[in-house]
Amino acid sequence: MPETRLDTARIRAARRVIDPVFLDTPLYRCEALEPGLGCAVSVKLETANPVRSFKGRGTELVASLLADAGRRAVVCASAGNLGQALAWSGRGRGLDVTVVASRFAPAAKLDRIRALDARLELVDGDFDTARERAAAIARHDGVRLVEDSLDIETCEGAATIGLELADAAPSFDAVLIALGGGAMATGVGHVLKALAPGVEVICVQPLGAPAMTYSWRRRQVVTTDSTDTIADGVAGRRPIPAVLDDLLLVADDAVLVRESSIIAGMRMLLDHAGLVVEPSAALGIAAVLEDRARFAGKHVATIVCGGNVDMDAYLRWMGTTPIDRT
Amino acid sequence: MPETRLDTARIRAARRVIDPVFLDTPLYRCEALEPGLGCAVSVKLETANPVRSFKGRGTELVASLLADAGRRAVVCASAGNLGQALAWSGRGRGLDVTVVASRFAPAAKLDRIRALDARLELVDGDFDTARERAAAIARHDGVRLVEDSLDIETCEGAATIGLELADAAPSFDAVLIALGGGAMATGVGHVLKALAPGVEVICVQPLGAPAMTYSWRRRQVVTTDSTDTIADGVAGRRPIPAVLDDLLLVADDAVLVRESSIIAGMRMLLDHAGLVVEPSAALGIAAVLEDRARFAGKHVATIVCGGNVDMDAYLRWMGTTPIDRT
Repeated sequence: MPETRLDTARIRAARRVIDPVFLDTPLYRCEALEPGLGCAVSVKLETANPVRSFKGRGTELVASLLADAGRRAVVCASAGNLGQALAWSGRGRGLDVTVVASRFAPAAKLDRIRALDARLELVDGDFDTARERAAAIARHDGVRLVEDSLDIETCEGAATIGLELADAAPSFDAVLIALGGGAMATGVGHVLKALAPGVEVICVQPLGAPAMTYSWRRRQVVTTDSTDTIADGVAGRRPIPAVLDDLLLVADDAVLVRESSIIAGMRMLLDHAGLVVEPSAALGIAAVLEDRARFAGKHVATIVCGGNVDMDAYLRWMGTTPIDRT
Repeated sequence: MPETRLDTARIRAARRVIDPVFLDTPLYRCEALEPGLGCAVSVKLETANPVRSFKGRGTELVASLLADAGRRAVVCASAGNLGQALAWSGRGRGLDVTVVASRFAPAAKLDRIRALDARLELVDGDFDTARERAAAIARHDGVRLVEDSLDIETCEGAATIGLELADAAPSFDAVLIALGGGAMATGVGHVLKALAPGVEVICVQPLGAPAMTYSWRRRQVVTTDSTDTIADGVAGRRPIPAVLDDLLLVADDAVLVRESSIIAGMRMLLDHAGLVVEPSAALGIAAVLEDRARFAGKHVATIVCGGNVDMDAYLRWMGTTPIDRT
């Protein structure tokens, strides 16, 4: 049992707080993907819910605790999916939600945050700039700051995916997890190490946003000056020490993949599984594409963690050009 | 309680036979669709499973009964989805599956039938030609023929969707159901009339394949000479009398929609819900698009019943042209 900040009993209890619309998501073999990948592939699909990402699992916990404590407002920085999910969870509980995001985040994500009645503040930098600004707002206004991956509820929410995977785990050799701030990797990783220790926990990050992977490899926080990836959901520069400590306990490997592999993975998921996924959600397939020998003949599960894309960009990545998109 | 061929207790029992991978599918509000439709919309998503359509619910029952009875082989006609599902369910139970389909069916559906180890026989006509050929094979070889919509198991399987909708039904004013042979419409309709009689059951068919809708309206079987629609999954010409009898008891309405509305519905589901759906699965959205006044301010649930498309055709329907699809 890894001595992370997480606790399996608390994660089980979290299931009772999270709206069932986010739980027990589809998990199924995608045989049509397999000839192209050389291994058996199961998909854990986190996009078929009101916010089209796994983040609702964590924001349900956060918003529920805040509402129970009589708090009225909350602020977070977000690459787009956490903000959308917090807006959804907060709206249902009467919380005033402020989301700080980069103005370069996908318009589709920003539009949905606004549509869900959150106050959206844009910063002229990247996600880590938004983190600083959100922290400043929280200090100034005396409002609760939600910090993705640092706040244990965000990890516990994501970890409920691990419970669902562990139920089916005897069939898997490895689970491929997108790595950004680390909430999903540490949460799912903790549960797998506790309940299905034979399953390899492999984190996947873009070469263009490698800070957490470098940190995991060197066993100390490594920051980068910038990021350069289409995988906006995992593009952080400044790993959180406590999250790295947990990741060191639960990850068996952390690999980096090229942008071309991410796009190839997105295309495979569209062409052979009929799934529209955002770049972060194709990282697992990209990892298999870059190292077929490693996975040959094995059975991998990959968490398709989000599907919020700007459709015009998406259709370009899919190798098409619009002719009649009025 | 409508006096159809279906029985709610048997439908409940069917859940114990069907592989759970086909059950308890996502059901969720898609608020991003709503500004364009003028009503609240929930999606019942039947595409996130190994065969990417709802048909596995019925073929699990069929294959299980055949295996229990010691049968070794089965044949069906299929527009593509039933055959794929029967191949999946039969493979798991050691059944020899033969599927007869039109050579004009989507290549993606035919490829998957073959990939699932079924024998595929193509006919030079449409789905109803395939039905005749499948019946001839069954007679000649002494093999069990599965007739979609006529065989009660195909209706009972689809009807389990109705149980899942009925659990959430107090929120819905209407459920929109694609109408082809009628298995899904009669199955889901039966359960809704039994358990949620306040919910309107609206069947939707393409104007280019209107035989069952005409039959429902005239209360007697009406056949057509041909079909002309991209909604290959519902393109039948010869309604089955017993199925029509059931449909007359459970459908509150049957409406016809234009091809342009089907494509517009598919685009809305892609652009605002991130869902790749086959034309039949967009019929419900098409019905709302063609009669916004009828649904204004209401809450509709639409069953997204399948997602098997030829991707090149799909991307054309989505208003794009390939530039780099190697």
